[in-house]
Amino acid sequence: MEHLFNPNGIAIVGASSNPGKAGFVALRNMKEKGYPGAVYPVNPRETEILGYPCSRSLREIQGNVELVVLIMPSKLIYSVMDDLDRRMEDRGDVRFIVCAAADYAETKTPEGCDRQARLMATAQRFGIRVVGPNCIGVIDNRSWVDTTFVDTGIPFSSFGEPSGISFLSQSGALASAVLMEGAGRIVPMLYNKFVSIGNMADVDFVDLLEYLETDASTRVIGIYMEGYRDGRTLAKVLGRVSRKKPVVVLKVGRSASGANAANSHTGSMAGADSVYDAMFRQNGVIRVDTIGELIDTLRAFDRMPLPAGGNLFLYSQAGGPGIYCTDAICSCPELRMPVLPESTKQRLAQTQLPMANICHPEGYADITASASVENHVEGLRVVLEDRQVDAVVFITVVPTFLPQKELAEALVRLERSFRPDHRKPVYYCVMAGAYTAPARGIMERAGLCTFDTPDKAVLAARNLCRYAAFLSGHREEDAQ
Amino acid sequence: MEHLFNPNGIAIVGASSNPGKAGFVALRNMKEKGYPGAVYPVNPRETEILGYPCSRSLREIQGNVELVVLIMPSKLIYSVMDDLDRRMEDRGDVRFIVCAAADYAETKTPEGCDRQARLMATAQRFGIRVVGPNCIGVIDNRSWVDTTFVDTGIPFSSFGEPSGISFLSQSGALASAVLMEGAGRIVPMLYNKFVSIGNMADVDFVDLLEYLETDASTRVIGIYMEGYRDGRTLAKVLGRVSRKKPVVVLKVGRSASGANAANSHTGSMAGADSVYDAMFRQNGVIRVDTIGELIDTLRAFDRMPLPAGGNLFLYSQAGGPGIYCTDAICSCPELRMPVLPESTKQRLAQTQLPMANICHPEGYADITASASVENHVEGLRVVLEDRQVDAVVFITVVPTFLPQKELAEALVRLERSFRPDHRKPVYYCVMAGAYTAPARGIMERAGLCTFDTPDKAVLAARNLCRYAAFLSGHREEDAQ
Repeated sequence: MEHLFNPNGIAIVGASSNPGKAGFVALRNMKEKGYPGAVYPVNPRETEILGYPCSRSLREIQGNVELVVLIMPSKLIYSVMDDLDRRMEDRGDVRFIVCAAADYAETKTPEGCDRQARLMATAQRFGIRVVGPNCIGVIDNRSWVDTTFVDTGIPFSSFGEPSGISFLSQSGALASAVLMEGAGRIVPMLYNKFVSIGNMADVDFVDLLEYLETDASTRVIGIYMEGYRDGRTLAKVLGRVSRKKPVVVLKVGRSASGANAANSHTGSMAGADSVYDAMFRQNGVIRVDTIGELIDTLRAFDRMPLPAGGNLFLYSQAGGPGIYCTDAICSCPELRMPVLPESTKQRLAQTQLPMANICHPEGYADITASASVENHVEGLRVVLEDRQVDAVVFITVVPTFLPQKELAEALVRLERSFRPDHRKPVYYCVMAGAYTAPARGIMERAGLCTFDTPDKAVLAARNLCRYAAFLSGHREEDAQ
Repeated sequence: MEHLFNPNGIAIVGASSNPGKAGFVALRNMKEKGYPGAVYPVNPRETEILGYPCSRSLREIQGNVELVVLIMPSKLIYSVMDDLDRRMEDRGDVRFIVCAAADYAETKTPEGCDRQARLMATAQRFGIRVVGPNCIGVIDNRSWVDTTFVDTGIPFSSFGEPSGISFLSQSGALASAVLMEGAGRIVPMLYNKFVSIGNMADVDFVDLLEYLETDASTRVIGIYMEGYRDGRTLAKVLGRVSRKKPVVVLKVGRSASGANAANSHTGSMAGADSVYDAMFRQNGVIRVDTIGELIDTLRAFDRMPLPAGGNLFLYSQAGGPGIYCTDAICSCPELRMPVLPESTKQRLAQTQLPMANICHPEGYADITASASVENHVEGLRVVLEDRQVDAVVFITVVPTFLPQKELAEALVRLERSFRPDHRKPVYYCVMAGAYTAPARGIMERAGLCTFDTPDKAVLAARNLCRYAAFLSGHREEDAQ
């Protein structure tokens, strides 16, 4: 897979100088990200696009090409493959094809199937691996490869460092929505590796999971799945990978109609959802219900240590959101609001204003809207230092009179004051929308994990806790 | 209540020239909104704030004052009330007090209770109604009253027209979060009337529901509730209001710990959640689970007609999101994906590319990523014209090559081509994040209701359907 994610030379067949075409956006994305290798647009009707000299055909390219991106109309596949055959006979350099275009076997028409067969004939003859067809492409934000034709609408300079999140999607549209959701965060987020696998004519979930299993820059794997033909192999690989790093899955086709739609879409036999559900549970795969939960959970895994257990303390500056969050925590059987020892309650009270509510109910503090930056931070320190506490949901609404940047910087300092092996997950819920974007920006850029509403923070906390329980169950088994 | 929402003269006691203080932000909000009446800041240590001449005391103000906003430190309540006593003896003009400050009876300290008693003594003596204490204030975006000290971080000029959504909240922090969530939408949203009722020392849910019941500019009422002392009266009023306009409630204290926290917070006896739940259901109140669902549902009620029934057609340009949405629809017993007659299926197919999936499963179309603007719009028209269809979820990811503004404008034209009494609710899910903000902006400003992910659209659709079923059940009862 190294040649897919970090190829020596990329050709883009169907590159275009028309900004309204996918073949233009793909080239522009690659240029914007600053891929350091050679990029060869291929289009017989152009001489140069975005400063790259254009080749008339694959065969004509003089330099080395390890990755070929196909983005031209699907009916041209015959001539492009003939051309690639000749190139491979001459030079034999191509290792991967990413076929981003649609209108192949997923249409279930004889024409579409024939086009896909033609693509695969060349691939098999020369041992070229194929991603797609019917996908939006591949991204590696470590080697700055981006073959997608997705415009996030966010200038590239405003993105943060690449995350440790790698993502695989069976649907191009869902993949692009996930890309966009990440880009729309307070600090726009770059995925580590990102693969839209489309029809899975060749490269599939299992291939990529096996690669990501040992990929050092991947901390957590996210998957959008409609179905997979070989459940037994998938289960085996998921079980193995899950012991090393978390796998978070959004699997659709829960309902009979949804399964029917999935079959019409990528031809997946979605299979009985309960079978998948049991398989995920047995193998420690974290299943999520919505796109929002998917991304929140992936970010929480990427940015925070795992909790030692399910004791989640709720530390809130605001009563209403605190009660709302208490309900959310109590709806998760994995989570408990811990009873702190009297000594900790006293220390906590000493850091707060007299009106603060300390531990009514247990596991809860409401430090009130009058809390200063120091009240916010020093109380959180006391809570985090208590051995009963495995994790904290921290809520603040940041009233106008609270200096938000000071608060953000103090929280960052607090997090950094803990030895890395003493860190606990803190789900920072900073609720006041656009107004608190500066504070959240400071926290996010420093590696903290922020949320906009408490329900989202609690779902992520539950999912980390679920995975931690799976891992510790396995460690016990292994120890026996 | 007219004197609360449209007072002749407003005094702000505790106004400040320090931008870090609540007393500054409240005055600035009023100035920014352009309240046309007289505004009198009161602060003995200032002569002028933001261009308004400052008075030393309430008594000193020469003009008429119908609304007094108290935002000064709570310990000053004694002298301020003494002063108000004298003003009322002289002029008797004040009709409402909004006591925004905290540190009153909610603290359950003797001092706090005494302060609240002092406030209420003057109020009762002169028949002045009180909102609060311990609230963030009151907004009326028709008369441009805004006594809150909340900074949304969004310039006022970018807000749309005032909506028909009025909102009541027992928690100031939750109220401010809801204000911020609205402000953070693609087109920032203004509430119609917005009241943070805090401790409910006087004005409470029932008073305000009775007012909003006949308030012409209120189309839908949203409530955040911790508890209410007189369940019988509340039920009666809710049942009556719900027959006229929808009431959407986020009620916390579902869990025992949450109820305990609510009691510590506003002193509400939350009562058994199941009792509230049954009361809401019987009275047609739509109960929601999250802040996001609350706002999505309020906006859907405000912007769209009610569906005639539960037949929800799913019209998607993207396979993965379509399947994901199918699952969401099938999880709601209120909704069905309708079987269209063959003639409609044929007409629909004629508007689409050959590869489109027409009604596999029933009630579903996937027009594919290659669909043009015309494919998007003409197919939707056919679906909306079918008598089987009560409502539509429309999903598009807007690929780079689809001109998004053209699509948005064509959808607006389509909506306007239906006679108002033939309109059906369409939940427009436009998924591609920041990239499609221009399209969503056009649609939102034209009154359409857009969502970012399908799960959110489906929850709103379910809630409208639930309310429509309640109403039609009542119409049947009334007819018998």
